[in-house]
Amino acid sequence: KLVELMEPLHPADIADMLEQINAFDRMRLIKLYDKEFDGEILSELDESIREDVILALHPEVLADAVRELDSDDVVDLIEDLDAAQQSAILEVLEDSDRVAVEQSLTYPEYSAGRLMQREVVMAPEHWNVGEAIDYLRATDDLPEQFYHIVMVDPKLRPVGNVALGRLMASRREILLRSLIEDTFHVIPVTRPEAEVAYAFNQYHLISAPVVDESERLVGVITIDDAMNVLDEEHEEDILRLAGVGEESRLSDNTLETVKQRLPWLAVNLLTAVLASLVIAQFEDVIGAVVALAVLMPIVASMGGNAGTQALTVAVRSLATRDLTSSNVWRIIGRELTVGLVNGVCFAVVMGVLALFWFGSPVLGVVIASAMVINLVVAGLAGIGVPVVLERFGVDPALASGTFVTTVTDVVGFFAFLGLASAVLL
Amino acid sequence: KLVELMEPLHPADIADMLEQINAFDRMRLIKLYDKEFDGEILSELDESIREDVILALHPEVLADAVRELDSDDVVDLIEDLDAAQQSAILEVLEDSDRVAVEQSLTYPEYSAGRLMQREVVMAPEHWNVGEAIDYLRATDDLPEQFYHIVMVDPKLRPVGNVALGRLMASRREILLRSLIEDTFHVIPVTRPEAEVAYAFNQYHLISAPVVDESERLVGVITIDDAMNVLDEEHEEDILRLAGVGEESRLSDNTLETVKQRLPWLAVNLLTAVLASLVIAQFEDVIGAVVALAVLMPIVASMGGNAGTQALTVAVRSLATRDLTSSNVWRIIGRELTVGLVNGVCFAVVMGVLALFWFGSPVLGVVIASAMVINLVVAGLAGIGVPVVLERFGVDPALASGTFVTTVTDVVGFFAFLGLASAVLL
Ligand SMILES: [Mg+2]
Ligand SMILES: [Mg+2]
Ligand SMILES: [Mg+2]
Ligand SMILES: [Mg+2]
Ligand SMILES: [Mg+2]
Ligand SMILES: [Mg+2]
Ligand SMILES: [Mg+2]
Ligand SMILES: [Mg+2]
Ligand SMILES: [Mg+2]
Ligand SMILES: [Mg+2]
Ligand SMILES: [Mg+2]
Ligand SMILES: [Mg+2]
Ligand SMILES: [Mg+2]
Repeated sequence: KLVELMEPLHPADIADMLEQINAFDRMRLIKLYDKEFDGEILSELDESIREDVILALHPEVLADAVRELDSDDVVDLIEDLDAAQQSAILEVLEDSDRVAVEQSLTYPEYSAGRLMQREVVMAPEHWNVGEAIDYLRATDDLPEQFYHIVMVDPKLRPVGNVALGRLMASRREILLRSLIEDTFHVIPVTRPEAEVAYAFNQYHLISAPVVDESERLVGVITIDDAMNVLDEEHEEDILRLAGVGEESRLSDNTLETVKQRLPWLAVNLLTAVLASLVIAQFEDVIGAVVALAVLMPIVASMGGNAGTQALTVAVRSLATRDLTSSNVWRIIGRELTVGLVNGVCFAVVMGVLALFWFGSPVLGVVIASAMVINLVVAGLAGIGVPVVLERFGVDPALASGTFVTTVTDVVGFFAFLGLASAVLL
Repeated sequence: KLVELMEPLHPADIADMLEQINAFDRMRLIKLYDKEFDGEILSELDESIREDVILALHPEVLADAVRELDSDDVVDLIEDLDAAQQSAILEVLEDSDRVAVEQSLTYPEYSAGRLMQREVVMAPEHWNVGEAIDYLRATDDLPEQFYHIVMVDPKLRPVGNVALGRLMASRREILLRSLIEDTFHVIPVTRPEAEVAYAFNQYHLISAPVVDESERLVGVITIDDAMNVLDEEHEEDILRLAGVGEESRLSDNTLETVKQRLPWLAVNLLTAVLASLVIAQFEDVIGAVVALAVLMPIVASMGGNAGTQALTVAVRSLATRDLTSSNVWRIIGRELTVGLVNGVCFAVVMGVLALFWFGSPVLGVVIASAMVINLVVAGLAGIGVPVVLERFGVDPALASGTFVTTVTDVVGFFAFLGLASAVLL
């Protein structure tokens, strides 16, 4: 009955379902569904619950499930397991597959070497279409999916990609060499996976050969895996910008969630206390003019928002490589001008508002000046902080949000209260 | 000389270069490079400067550039141009291409119909491998890139995908029907492109047939274009969360940038004034105990941060379809508990800090209580606001940030100052 219900579902959807139910139901479902458990389900599962599922599966079912996966999926599956579980899985693989997986695991995490599959279809440079087709017909362990034949020289170095579509459309006597694609990217095995994903997206690659230090072909990366990396990179950016651990998953329990969020809130507490220390310098003037306490959060809040706007555009542009050394000064200039223009607009609005609310022209001028100062600083900090972090090799998404809002809080309170105490006391 | 320098560059890189230099240099470069201008460069250019570049090109160069593009790229190129420019480009296309492009333009913006290419390779159900290969060899206007042959029934309804790899590996007499892939997704022509991108990423699709209302095959979407949509959807989410118009581009000038950011800052000003109105209710107690003005931004800031954390996780989970009606109550419960746990932690820290800083145990209790209240509310608002917006068909990334921080500001100030005036006055 259960098997009938699950049959039409794609493994990715079954994985999503397992993620969404609670741990108890999950274990019951797995015991019931055990026999039919598909390797693809495992590789689609979130890492946070994958380990539990692997432990719950019958060893023989697990072995069958793993044996049907491509090498890249096996690598992704076992790279985060502990050594005992890793070797349990490696043992059930055929010898050649095991060697391929072990080889991939020697490359750094998040490198092309971990992302590539070892199953490659290659052909020598001198072959023609007929020879390639006969070879494919005679080979019985071809990869599940492949889109190009990689042409290699006698030293196994890739020299070109032939798309299967062009191959099929050509007569048998045509040389492969005459069919190679214009766009051909060779990826070094140590290249970070984020850069691999960028290259696929930028150049519309479908598959690309991976080479080792001696430029020999060792594997191939396909676009579906690159698309997955692009999606994960985005998740990392958006979660880091919000101060959430990038390993955060919806299937995490309460304790794990607290562990991911608490450190960032602690950092935020420190910076908030810093801003409070600034305010504490001006207790006298606040005691004399309580209206200052009413208005001061507005200046800080506008600065924080304007800074976040500039920051987010900068982080995104760095990720898409649209912000480079050739245009960074122009963009800094733009952010400065934008800060000034927005600052003047909201200075006028707030100046008038403060005048009518508290009947004090001086207060109007003070808040207007503080607004201009803070929005200009917000623009500069918003672009400057991520650019400087990037230069020092730190992920610009990681720490910039806190930095920028600390700057705008401190500058906002200092400018507003400092001007006020100079003029009003 | 210039041509020699540009020759090895990929059109996407040339487009990026044109985006990064200023408008004046751009026009000079285009005049110089005119002769060699490639259609692919146009389709890779940001929309914000594409129009200027099209106007700067010699009409004949433009015609050549456009004629070499696939129909999906022509659609993407002209959909945002004004009617006069559109028909100028349509005119230079061959009749069959023009009809295909005009047909695509009748489908809604951001639908599968705009994303698909009309060039499809199809075969009737009863063909065998030999017939398919002979057909491909005999056809001379095959698409630039294709990865599957779509099998269709006599009414032109798609019934299965045959991967070229499997086709090539099979003997001539094998029936296509026996080679179809397990995973086969048919996309209705009106489906939003964001859902198309989701399906490609979820099911590892490489290409998928598109059908009209009567289920006839009208085109095919390939993964490179779906990957591009996924990337744009990410951009939209991250920019909307930061309150930046999602049409924002790094190549925008100052005026356009101000236009995109000012409205969101205006919304933020309104909400900041709202928070100030709350503070204004408590002028008396602030006048009596100035320490309240020093500490109150801490409560608001911690709430804003905790709310943004919960919100970002919720927005991302809604985008990846991991947050659904089946687990939303569990996640709401989790956010509530996380808010409570974090609230208690920081309540203790701040209570002790306030006690030592201002020597007042009462002040310590007040800020500790306000902290717990605000972090619980932050968790609930962070998950609740995006979920409710999604139910009402509003993009949860669009307005939630402002909503949530308004709630945490108002609740933070009200709880802290309200408790203070109850206890201290
Ligand atoms: Mg999943
Ligand atoms: Mg990995
Ligand atoms: Mg992994
Ligand atoms: Mg793969
Ligand atoms: Mg990153
Ligand atoms: Mg780019
Ligand atoms: Mg570009
Ligand atoms: Mg294209
Ligand atoms: Mg479009
Ligand atoms: Mg477009
Ligand atoms: Mg295309
Ligand atoms: Mg969206
Ligand atoms: Mg999913």
